[in-house]
Amino acid sequence: MTDHTIPYRPVPGVLLSAAAAGIRYQGRDDLVLMALPAGTRCAAVFTRNAFCAAPVLVAKRHLATRVPRYLLINSGNANAGTGEQGLADAEASCAALAALTGCYPEEVLPFSTGVIGEPLPLSKLTAALPTALDRMRETTWPEAVQAIMTTDTVPKLASRRLTAAGRTAVITGMAKGAGMICPDMATLLVFLATDLAVDQALLQHSLSTAMETSFNAITVDGDTSTNDACVLAAAGTLSNQPLQDPESPDSLAFRSALEAVCRELATAIMRDAEGATKLVKIRVEETRDGAEARRVADTIAHSPLVKTALFAGDPNWGRILAAVGRADLDRLDIQAVRIWLDDLRIVSHGGRDPDYTESAGQAVLKQEEITIRVALGRGQAITELLTCDLSYEYVRINAEYRT
Amino acid sequence: MTDHTIPYRPVPGVLLSAAAAGIRYQGRDDLVLMALPAGTRCAAVFTRNAFCAAPVLVAKRHLATRVPRYLLINSGNANAGTGEQGLADAEASCAALAALTGCYPEEVLPFSTGVIGEPLPLSKLTAALPTALDRMRETTWPEAVQAIMTTDTVPKLASRRLTAAGRTAVITGMAKGAGMICPDMATLLVFLATDLAVDQALLQHSLSTAMETSFNAITVDGDTSTNDACVLAAAGTLSNQPLQDPESPDSLAFRSALEAVCRELATAIMRDAEGATKLVKIRVEETRDGAEARRVADTIAHSPLVKTALFAGDPNWGRILAAVGRADLDRLDIQAVRIWLDDLRIVSHGGRDPDYTESAGQAVLKQEEITIRVALGRGQAITELLTCDLSYEYVRINAEYRT
Repeated sequence: MTDHTIPYRPVPGVLLSAAAAGIRYQGRDDLVLMALPAGTRCAAVFTRNAFCAAPVLVAKRHLATRVPRYLLINSGNANAGTGEQGLADAEASCAALAALTGCYPEEVLPFSTGVIGEPLPLSKLTAALPTALDRMRETTWPEAVQAIMTTDTVPKLASRRLTAAGRTAVITGMAKGAGMICPDMATLLVFLATDLAVDQALLQHSLSTAMETSFNAITVDGDTSTNDACVLAAAGTLSNQPLQDPESPDSLAFRSALEAVCRELATAIMRDAEGATKLVKIRVEETRDGAEARRVADTIAHSPLVKTALFAGDPNWGRILAAVGRADLDRLDIQAVRIWLDDLRIVSHGGRDPDYTESAGQAVLKQEEITIRVALGRGQAITELLTCDLSYEYVRINAEYRT
Repeated sequence: MTDHTIPYRPVPGVLLSAAAAGIRYQGRDDLVLMALPAGTRCAAVFTRNAFCAAPVLVAKRHLATRVPRYLLINSGNANAGTGEQGLADAEASCAALAALTGCYPEEVLPFSTGVIGEPLPLSKLTAALPTALDRMRETTWPEAVQAIMTTDTVPKLASRRLTAAGRTAVITGMAKGAGMICPDMATLLVFLATDLAVDQALLQHSLSTAMETSFNAITVDGDTSTNDACVLAAAGTLSNQPLQDPESPDSLAFRSALEAVCRELATAIMRDAEGATKLVKIRVEETRDGAEARRVADTIAHSPLVKTALFAGDPNWGRILAAVGRADLDRLDIQAVRIWLDDLRIVSHGGRDPDYTESAGQAVLKQEEITIRVALGRGQAITELLTCDLSYEYVRINAEYRT
């Protein structure tokens, strides 16, 4: 059964299935298999948190050994903070799938999301594998994306078509994550596939680049997960000459479509941030370099004072200005600082804009989507970050969610 | 009228008064004068926020020119984000006091706290100066500390006695600030005085050192104010040979007493953090250096996920561990990480301690004061930080407070 309410395009040669293993949830699928054809190239990015979960460590090790044929994903249990037993369980889950399919255990990459610190119920997981293998289809993306959800309230699935080597290729991806705000289920998991053939180095480069303007440009509260992972598989079923030159027209088309899919998924994650009432883009421009722009954007995005003001619809320019002021910029010229809410200038010459009125600011903040634009007048660099407000609901969700 | 419910010791030669200027509040004092005798030495520390308020800029300038004779403090209006007019108003307030007392305008240091972005009502302030000058007493500390309060719910006043040069000296200080959580009134103002004579260089060194373990070791949300200031005056009325050698027994006694006063005031500020239900000490030990320890402590203290778990009384060790994991430590040995709640070990070998039980953790978190201790097994450095939890009340206060 395909849920036709979620628009997407299958990726020829890439098969998926979803099954109910009863790992934590009852009455819903919580296990996903993704099968990649022979000849696939695979790129991946993992969490930078020093406390990687067991499946992250195992996936990295397998990826360094062989080209993956299967992605084995479970929700409900993160297999994180589980020590040596967790590593053994992650390896055993790969071995079980390998035994059933005849591949090497190192050709399976494991991914987990859910509560941390509890042992993975390995036997439940392996018992569901035969059912999952029976259901492999190119058209199971909608069921798969539902099965990897934890605190997500909507499934996140996106597709783009592009023309490369004179043929129409497709990139499709699914993501789970509700704005990284839910502690033990905070994981961001993203699985992307294309039917293009892409050289390994270009594939990894394209994924890393696309991350910067998508999944690495969203933030709710600065907390990162132990399980975050993003995988991009190039199945090669389009049988094109593998893309290799990053600047060729075909590669540029591919990278652009990939970035569009990633941004669509990342925006969907921010929209689904639990407790958030507003989607806020922070755009910082005229900085000396990108790092400086990002530092200012992060400081604004993580300021609880700015976030509560956004929740209240209070155009509190003083809080934004104070956040810029503590972003540790070398010799900031305060007179050069300007700030806008959408197109409304609220700060000029480092102080309240003379034409600004409180009621105009409040009108902008009534919207559900707002851009805070900060110009520093000291360079050409720009960055954009998506974030959200800080509400009662955020505190409730994160206080009430128990390990 | 002296409020004898606040225990403190006057500082011989240092006079204070409080008066009602009606700057923002009605029916309460909002103006404080502090007079320092001739021969006073004065040290100060100001906000590192690039957007300094006008009084901070003027106080710095005056301090570089002459030794202060008066501190002129108002609450209700921060004179911040007020541009050139704000600077002129701050200078004019000093000039008005100078004209009344016959001192130089540069011998007056101005301090303001309150709403930002609104012009200082200068005439109201100067109209109250004669009344304030009439009331100067050594025993007005309790009235003064009440007059500088904004969102504070309790006045913060502390004293220590010490023996130096065979005589009994005193250090007394007052502070305002409710955990730096209230945006436009977030200012931390601290005024300390001693009757000791202290050499200027030692005075500044002693203040800077004492700050590190007191006002610089408390954090609610990472937001800093545009108006923060801390002043230490050594009146010299004890007529001792000025303390000069930082390592002499008298200097050590002075520095120790100063640190004790600062820590008492800083702890009182954290206890008064609006919306907080718990006082939380973060102690990070066995790090390579102090900067590394502080980075870990800051990451834990600013993690909304840790703070909401503390609010809920949820011993969520995974959230603390994940915060350590993203503190960007070079080659962290996860196996060496141990974490305690008070004396209860919750994490060993980088995972849940085998003897730990959820109910034991919950029992510790029922307390109003908790210590989270993290040991990293990679060095000898230690830091301690005071913070608080993140509650519904925090969001309410900061969402409802309007400019």
